[in-house]
This record gives sequence, structure tokens and C-alpha cells, in this order.
Amino acid sequence: MAVNERPSALLTDLYQINMIQAYLDHGEAKPAVFEFFVRNLPPRRGFLVAAGLAQALDYLDTLGFSDSEIDWLKSTGQFRKNLIDYLAGMRFTGDVHAMPEGTIFFANEPILRITAPLPQAQFVESRLINILHFQTLIASKAARMMLAAPGKVLVDFGMRRAHGAEAGVLAARASYLVGFAGTATVLAGERFGIPLYGTMAHSFIEAFDDESAAFEAFARARPENLVLLLDTYDSEAAARKVVALAPKLKAAGITVRGVRLDSGDLVALSKSVRAILDAGGLRDVTIFASGGLDEDQLAVFTQQDAPIDGLGVGTSLTTSSDVPALDCVYKLQEYAGVARRKRSAKKATWPGRKQVWRRYSADGRMAGDLLAREGDNKPGEPLLEPVMQGGKRLRPAPSLDDIRRHAKREFDRLPAPLQSLKPGTAYPVEIAAEIVELAAAFDRRMQAQSASAK
Amino acid sequence: MAVNERPSALLTDLYQINMIQAYLDHGEAKPAVFEFFVRNLPPRRGFLVAAGLAQALDYLDTLGFSDSEIDWLKSTGQFRKNLIDYLAGMRFTGDVHAMPEGTIFFANEPILRITAPLPQAQFVESRLINILHFQTLIASKAARMMLAAPGKVLVDFGMRRAHGAEAGVLAARASYLVGFAGTATVLAGERFGIPLYGTMAHSFIEAFDDESAAFEAFARARPENLVLLLDTYDSEAAARKVVALAPKLKAAGITVRGVRLDSGDLVALSKSVRAILDAGGLRDVTIFASGGLDEDQLAVFTQQDAPIDGLGVGTSLTTSSDVPALDCVYKLQEYAGVARRKRSAKKATWPGRKQVWRRYSADGRMAGDLLAREGDNKPGEPLLEPVMQGGKRLRPAPSLDDIRRHAKREFDRLPAPLQSLKPGTAYPVEIAAEIVELAAAFDRRMQAQSASAK
Repeated sequence: MAVNERPSALLTDLYQINMIQAYLDHGEAKPAVFEFFVRNLPPRRGFLVAAGLAQALDYLDTLGFSDSEIDWLKSTGQFRKNLIDYLAGMRFTGDVHAMPEGTIFFANEPILRITAPLPQAQFVESRLINILHFQTLIASKAARMMLAAPGKVLVDFGMRRAHGAEAGVLAARASYLVGFAGTATVLAGERFGIPLYGTMAHSFIEAFDDESAAFEAFARARPENLVLLLDTYDSEAAARKVVALAPKLKAAGITVRGVRLDSGDLVALSKSVRAILDAGGLRDVTIFASGGLDEDQLAVFTQQDAPIDGLGVGTSLTTSSDVPALDCVYKLQEYAGVARRKRSAKKATWPGRKQVWRRYSADGRMAGDLLAREGDNKPGEPLLEPVMQGGKRLRPAPSLDDIRRHAKREFDRLPAPLQSLKPGTAYPVEIAAEIVELAAAFDRRMQAQSASAK
Repeated sequence: MAVNERPSALLTDLYQINMIQAYLDHGEAKPAVFEFFVRNLPPRRGFLVAAGLAQALDYLDTLGFSDSEIDWLKSTGQFRKNLIDYLAGMRFTGDVHAMPEGTIFFANEPILRITAPLPQAQFVESRLINILHFQTLIASKAARMMLAAPGKVLVDFGMRRAHGAEAGVLAARASYLVGFAGTATVLAGERFGIPLYGTMAHSFIEAFDDESAAFEAFARARPENLVLLLDTYDSEAAARKVVALAPKLKAAGITVRGVRLDSGDLVALSKSVRAILDAGGLRDVTIFASGGLDEDQLAVFTQQDAPIDGLGVGTSLTTSSDVPALDCVYKLQEYAGVARRKRSAKKATWPGRKQVWRRYSADGRMAGDLLAREGDNKPGEPLLEPVMQGGKRLRPAPSLDDIRRHAKREFDRLPAPLQSLKPGTAYPVEIAAEIVELAAAFDRRMQAQSASAK
């Protein structure tokens, strides 16, 4: 099975294994704290939506090498015995703090923190980023589509051009958790219980010599939630065929529920097809649109009052096409009780283990965040909560419906400037004085060291 | 295991299953011909590189529903018995023609053709696109990097921000087949025998109180192919530490092979670090650069003669960041012996089963392609070849090394305008008169039908 089973522990970067060798030889297995965060919000993103925690915890929960994986590592002749033995017995025994999936977050705010012996905490970096990055990317993109098309039924049609099997299935999950109605991807229905949507393809119509005959054959075969595809040859002509066919289908107990438009000027076509359907007595037949749509086009439909009831979005959603990657990292913030910091040009990080505190204004909207040291009490609501301790989950995973409710509550609390596709004023995220001082103290220590080395 | 095992047959779109119901009820199981092709070349792509055929054939070879998948389909209550029975027994029994992996191709040229009973040929659409699209996308992106950095060692570092597990592993494969030296992704080494590269992370340096101590600990633990990371705090200072440390390591029989720069002005830093290393007697130590690189930056390094020997590219490669999806489709071209065509606005297709013929100029460079009907003999070399017949492979899969050799030969034959990152004149692809006539005949038939319907 390609998706959502225990992944091979070999899905990591070679340097993680190299570093573990050095950690083992040097006895560096003291507690390390790593945080996963996004360094900068990408263009046109006023906020991001945390997602992927369920799969991240599955990964940590089941981490371990199989005998055949260990045999392969041995067969390469590149790894010493103490390393192989360590990997063969490696389990994740650390603690995890995280924001619940569906939480809105901003640059520099950790959404997950790992506290574990250094080799373990180091090893899991590559796959943890791989898991958290992708669903967060897609949930954040899907959130824009929800903002652009309020009240519409949005469906994920994008598995085919998602980047591989896992991306196809997890994009369905990430978009559903922020409020999509469902997906076309059957495996996502089986794995996560996500509602499935599906109509017909142009090839179906083309396989028949006559379009009306194709409609009728499909209607009789799949009379439930019947949606007919109009644009194979001429959308308006096809709408008239649907009107002509509807009484015959009705006599057979079959109701046309909707039609789908997949090409052309969708605003104009939705209006002309709506008029044809209405004039033909098919006022209850809904119009579903698809075909290379993104949130900007969805916003145009909304602005122009296009009579479109539902939308299938594919590639732009499942590849997050305008921003196919986030500038996310998993960074060492503390080791052996001492705060650590990377100081590379333009990539410096805030040291220490952190909590994010969020304040709300009187009307319940998000008013500002504060990045503080863990343990310092600050005004507002802390966003990171313990989810795993000593390698054990602290509570059952929330259901996808629970996550959807949480995400909806988060959207309801978005300040107005962030509800636009072109976010205006940036949301305020302050760095607590204690964190700034921690960074300064670290820098002073490094400077003293480098001075004494000269 | 997350990758490259038999994927669940449920990894498809619901509408494929809906359409099979109608095909079964209507007795539509005659031979259908579908072709996979890219409708338009994306911006800044003068050509594409076919990839993913090995995984596509694995998919077709092993297609079938397990008992538990069939049980799940039954449990939904949405599918009738004749459909469930059909799916339970479904195997792929068709023929496949394809361009070998590593072949250069252009818009409208099929790289894979399926000839199979309609329900089968329809069913495989979603996952076949998912497989062929991704590796073709990445191989085509990687080819640009090869063009931008001739003679450099290029390594895939991008699993962490690839879109899921399968994308991470298959991006390593797709980039290796066009000439990358290897990957950091261990699982890609295990699955495909791709050479593995790995250095160390900033967190390793940070875990030690002293950078030189970190270098030495790593060198002693992993003395083979030793590459030290310089930019955690100050790259030039770190280079001086490497120079200071090298004699001590040499006395212990350890040779520093390279250093890595991961941030800052890489052109300037590579020159200053080169000077420091050279002055310190470390002329043989190579410089490896990484950190958010794409082909445009690689081209700058080449133009500015930056003394960089190797390059790790990550996110821009594994997400094909400037073009994260291709406008690729899998379209019905013939059914029951009759050519078919989609005529939707801006999405019309050339009907019939096709062959691509390529001509070469006297110097061996590609000179022009012709899209012709299969069976018509044309000048040049036909690019599509039979690879599967009656559901059986016609020959063993070529090795990745064979594919690399084929891709290299293809690159050597690229016309000069296509060797630039900003392709100039488009490569000529003609449509044979017989295909144009087939489309016209189809359109006349449709018009006659719609006239008679009025």
C-alpha cells in the first residue's frame, strides 16, 4: 500500500545517519530540543494553517528499522557496528508539543517541538519536515480557496497531478480539514472517511457516438447524485440535451442533480447554462465548475455572481501551485539544557524552547501573538500543548471532524485584513524580551569564544 | 513501506468507478486507445524529458483489488454487484507503447499509449497520470540544472520539502536518470541503487560548544568522504578552523575531502574560502554549495567562475518550484476502431493513435518532429515503441544506468537554442496531414449530427 502505512525508516537523509555515528562515538545523547517552524510567510499568504500532526505522531509512534532494512544498511559496508546496533534498537522515546491541526500560525512560531535524546531527535528531522510541510502547505492553500468562495461546495479533484501517491491522498485530507466538502480520490475516502465526489470524464461522452445517449447511459447506470458533464463539444447545446432528456429520466425515477462545466468562459457559460436549465424547468439542477481553477478565479466567480454552486479544484490545490513549498525548518534550539542558535546569514534562529501566546480582541478576533520562552507566563492563550510524552501519545487523536470544527473556529477569529487573498497589514507577532536576551547572550558567548581563539 | 510497493488500487478517482458501472451496463468494453501527453510546454521549458515509465508499468503489471479493498467498496453501499464483481477480477490485459525514459519530447507528443478494453483503459487514468506527470516534471527540471552547471557534481537534497514520501524517493530517481550524481535520500539508495551523499547539519555543530571540536568529532566518526559544514556561524572563520585542524586529522589518517557552504553570498564566499583553503595547503579540498539553489543561481555560479565543485539542490528540484505541474492529460483517441476527439474550448485534442517521428540534421542534432498516424511510415526515427502486450512486459526493464546513457545521448543531440535556460526558437513539431484530416472528418461528423438533432 502506497500511503499512510508505516513508512520505511530509510526515508531519511544520509547525513542524519552520519551524524548519529558521531553522536554515539562522542557520547552526545543528552536531551535535545528541536522546533519546526516557517521562517517567512510566502508571497500572498497572510497566515498558515498547521496540518499533518496526526501523520507526524504516527511516524514517531512506529519509528524503527525492520530486519531487512538493517540488513540493507549492513550490506552497504558504510556503517560501523555500534551505529547499526543503535539503529536496530532505535525507538522514539521523546516528548512532543504541538499546535492542534487546523490552528492558524505565522512566521517563526513553532508548530511542533521535539524533546528527545539527540540522536533520535536528529534522525527524525527529514521525514518530520516532509510530513508537516506538505499538509500545512495544502491546508494553507485550501484555506485561501475557502475564503474566496464562501458558501460554495469545494471538492478536491487534484490527485492526478499531485506529486505522487502520498501527496494525492494527504492533499485530500489537508483540504478537507479546513472545510472542503470532499474529494474525488477514492483512497482518501477509505483511509480517512472523507466524502467522495465524482461525475464523469470527457472520454465517457466521446466513447458514445451521441452525447445524449452517453448522458442517458450514465444516468441509468449511476442514478444517485447524478451530475452530467456538458463541455465535451458545446456546453450550451449539451445543456439543451439535458433539458430534453430530463422528463424521460424522471419517468424512470431518475433526477438530474447537477451539470458540470470544465472549460470555456465559466462566468458566461454558467449564466447561459443556468438560463437554459431554468427555462427548461430544471431550477433545482446545480452547476458545478472545474478546469484549472485557483483561488483567484474562485474570487472572480464570487465577485461576478456566477451561478456556480460547487467547484472542483485540482492542480492548483494539490501542488499549491503559486507557492509549492514553504520556507520551513526543524532547528536545534537547546541541547543539554543550554539554548542553541544558528547564526548563518539571513537564516539566524531564535534560541530556546518556546511557547506561542495569542491574544484576542473584545470581538473575539485574533489580536496579536507573542513568542516567549516556555515556562514564562504571558497574557493570552498558549497554542502549543503536550501531545506525546516518553514516546507515548497523551490522548487519542482527534477525529477529522473535530479538526474541521477547530479550523472553522480559527477562521471565524481571523482579523479582517487576513481574510483577503491579498493580505494587507501583517499580523503582529512579537518576540518576548527574554528570547531576545537569550539570543544576545548566546551571541556574546560565541564572540568571546572566537576572540579567545584568535 | 511508503514507496514503490504495489499501491492500493483505490488510488483512483471516483468517477472512473462510476463510468465503469455505465460501461458495464452498456456493454462498452471494446478496445479503447488513450494517449498521455502534455498540451503545452510551460514557461521557460524548451523541452521535456519523459520519465516514470518503469513505475507506470509496475502499476499496470500488478493492478488488482485486494479482498479488503473489495470489502471496503462493498461496505460503502454505493456500488452494484456487477461492478464489484468486475473490479474484483480486474487485471490489466492491454498493450502499452511508450517513449523510453530519458527521451526528450515536446507538446502534443504522446509519451505513452494504452490500448485496452475501455473499462480498464479508463480506470488506470488517474494513477497513470500521477506517476508519469511527477517524474517527467522533475526530470525536466533536473535537466535544466544539468544545462546550467556543466561539469559539476549535482546532488538531490530535496526529500524534506518534496510533497510526501513517494515524491521524495521518485524525485531522486528522476534527477539521477538525467545525470545527477546522487541523492541524500537513503531510501532511494536502497530502492534504486542511487549513490548516496551526505555531510552534516548545522544542528551537529550547534550541539558542540566549540566548532572545531564538532569538526574533529565528526571527522573521527565518519572519516570517509569527509565534508565539513562551514556556515553555522561564520564561513571564513570556519574555513580557517578546517585549515588548522587538517594536519592533526592527517596524522590520524583522515583526509578532509570537502567543505560545504549553505548560506550567504556563495560566489564571494566560495572564492574567499577557496583562497583560505589554498593558502592553508588544502588545494584538493573541494567546495560544495547548497541552500535554496535553483538553475538560475547555478548559471550565475558558472558565469562568474565560482570555484564550486558540487551542488546540493533541494526544494526547487523536488517541487519543480517555478513550474510545479505540467499541463498533461490522458485522452481517449480512438474507441471501437473509430478516432475520437475532445473539442472543448482551448482543450481540443488531435484524434487517432499516433507515432512521433524525429529527424536529425547532419551533425546529429534533433531537427524536427512529426506527429503522424500510427502505421504511416514517415522520415526519421519513431519514438514510441511497444513495451507491454496483452498485459505482459515485452522485455526486462532497462537499468537506471541504461536510462542515464540514453538521456545523455538525448542531451548531446539537443539543438543549441534548447540548451539555454531561456529557450529561443521553439523546436518544430509538425502535425501530419492525415491527422489534420482525421480531426476535420471527426468535426464534420459531429456537425452533421448536431444539425440533424435540430
